[in-house]
Amino acid sequence: MEKIYSYSALSKFTYDVFKSIGCSEEHSKLATEVLVQADLRGIDSHGVARLIGYVRLWESKRINPTPNIKIVHETPSTAVVDGDSGLGLVVAPKAMEIAMEKAEKVGTGWVSVKNSNHYGIAGYHAMMALENDMVGISMTNASPLVSPTFATERMLGTNPIAVAIPSNQEQPFIADMATTTAANGKLEILQRKGENTPLGWVQDKEGRPSQDAHELKNGGALLPLGGDREHGSHKGYALGSIVDIFSAVFSGANYGPWAPPFVSFLPMPENPVGEGLGHFLGAMRIDAFRPKSEFKENMDNWIRRFKNTQAVPGKKVLIPGDPEREMELKRMNEGIPLNENVLKDLEEVGDKFGISLKT
Amino acid sequence: MEKIYSYSALSKFTYDVFKSIGCSEEHSKLATEVLVQADLRGIDSHGVARLIGYVRLWESKRINPTPNIKIVHETPSTAVVDGDSGLGLVVAPKAMEIAMEKAEKVGTGWVSVKNSNHYGIAGYHAMMALENDMVGISMTNASPLVSPTFATERMLGTNPIAVAIPSNQEQPFIADMATTTAANGKLEILQRKGENTPLGWVQDKEGRPSQDAHELKNGGALLPLGGDREHGSHKGYALGSIVDIFSAVFSGANYGPWAPPFVSFLPMPENPVGEGLGHFLGAMRIDAFRPKSEFKENMDNWIRRFKNTQAVPGKKVLIPGDPEREMELKRMNEGIPLNENVLKDLEEVGDKFGISLKT
Repeated sequence: MEKIYSYSALSKFTYDVFKSIGCSEEHSKLATEVLVQADLRGIDSHGVARLIGYVRLWESKRINPTPNIKIVHETPSTAVVDGDSGLGLVVAPKAMEIAMEKAEKVGTGWVSVKNSNHYGIAGYHAMMALENDMVGISMTNASPLVSPTFATERMLGTNPIAVAIPSNQEQPFIADMATTTAANGKLEILQRKGENTPLGWVQDKEGRPSQDAHELKNGGALLPLGGDREHGSHKGYALGSIVDIFSAVFSGANYGPWAPPFVSFLPMPENPVGEGLGHFLGAMRIDAFRPKSEFKENMDNWIRRFKNTQAVPGKKVLIPGDPEREMELKRMNEGIPLNENVLKDLEEVGDKFGISLKT
Repeated sequence: MEKIYSYSALSKFTYDVFKSIGCSEEHSKLATEVLVQADLRGIDSHGVARLIGYVRLWESKRINPTPNIKIVHETPSTAVVDGDSGLGLVVAPKAMEIAMEKAEKVGTGWVSVKNSNHYGIAGYHAMMALENDMVGISMTNASPLVSPTFATERMLGTNPIAVAIPSNQEQPFIADMATTTAANGKLEILQRKGENTPLGWVQDKEGRPSQDAHELKNGGALLPLGGDREHGSHKGYALGSIVDIFSAVFSGANYGPWAPPFVSFLPMPENPVGEGLGHFLGAMRIDAFRPKSEFKENMDNWIRRFKNTQAVPGKKVLIPGDPEREMELKRMNEGIPLNENVLKDLEEVGDKFGISLKT
């Protein structure tokens, strides 16, 4: 059974939860905005469904609600930020602010972050750049669920890449994608429906192709974008690796199989090679390359030309960001549906702190 | 019938050809190194096989052998370079030098290039950063052969991304990949063998899945990495688009379907939206993030851990760059095989200028 909640009701509840675990008003507001933005944009796996996960990480002392987020190394165009075990939902936007300040001064800014946690949807942080007429880039590593080409072991997270590019009259270009064939959230949907996955999404624990949506529970793995070697999975593996290295080797976070788990019931990996999770945030001023108006006019022209691409009957060519934008409009008007598992979790969280979720 | 040529024999011939079309000694040397590096690394489609193409572009006055390559816009960390219709093989390394000079000063450097031509293998330019202890990034747009998800029209090139990351005792991480399921060179191999492609590489002109390796000649298209929507082709489409925008909308080159063709017998697109082809080159000093030794030790550890990933029987997990490195060693020792079509083309080029290719 699904129930529908308004954006503001979910935000109110989420804010109260973050306040209850000891976050400041400012941090609670920011974390709420990042988290509920995911629900609004239809990326349900990264929204309030994860709220209980953050609370449990806080309970197990893996999240510091009052972090001292600081720059530990920098040049005019770069910085490494120590997230002090804070919520990634707070640490990443702060790091993106630093990237944008640097871009303001020298054209571009690039910030690698250590000692952070799960940062919500990659797209949120990239999109922050748009209002400043900058291109925004956001990536993060994550706990290992993905096997490199030919591997049976899980070595990488779904390691997303987001890129947001400003336009003028057209809606901006916003790519936000896991570097796997399919994000984990899509598996969860199939699990709930009791359906199989297409081939190329998962493999079993021996590295054999599988269509079982529950394969991760049995020691299987998600596959890098491409699916198998013949279809370019070595490219998805390389992309996921680049995200891992920029996020964690640049910063001094844990990389590869050492990336800490999101769920508090899994132990932290032994012999850590760094601190916490890592992110990588970038900002490039468009006028560091070309006058703003010229760039934006050409970007509008790019978007229009691609929208008008000749398509197969009954389909149209989309611009990255279109589906999420459509969902955002719909859910802002009609509300956000939550399934009963998520509702049960939110109720449990609410009970902890004496907060109730109203529709 | 294949014949084997030494690296130095191919280089000598190629150098003489570039000199013959009017390139300076310095430019001829550089263009030769970039081009023959492709053959050495096993990316045969981008090596001397293309030499006749460059000569024909010069004959049709689309390549300027004595370009005035210059910065037309800049900030401390960015530049736009006008390639003055020069060989991409020369323009791109020059632009990468500028990116590295900027990185030297402010931590990172990012150069978008317009008015250029095909630049050889993306990896060459990214790898230039390694000797300066920098991460190198290289991408380029190219003539349209790829259909976005759901499209029947060709809108993007195979738009490669290369990323080179320095290490200490281990060999560096070097990813160099088209943002399509399979590069065009792989199709050419199947064409020569008279074999079909796997599903997911190409579609026919109506947008239907195809396995015909000659499909591009019949109005078909290459498919973005992922192959189809269910397997994430919208991600490959987004990646190819990002390459296009960074290379051409940042710089003022032609983007999307306006990207000029490599082959001189195809007309230039009408109503161009910019000048020539575009590239995007980036350099990030590793010590702009972290002390060099720390970065490199962790990178070594990353590489060793991934090399030792548990693999399916009979296979091992590779580090991006491993196959090309192996090929380079082999071909440096044993020579570079050229097939009869390539030899015929090289003979034609040699005859034009009174140069002969010796083994």
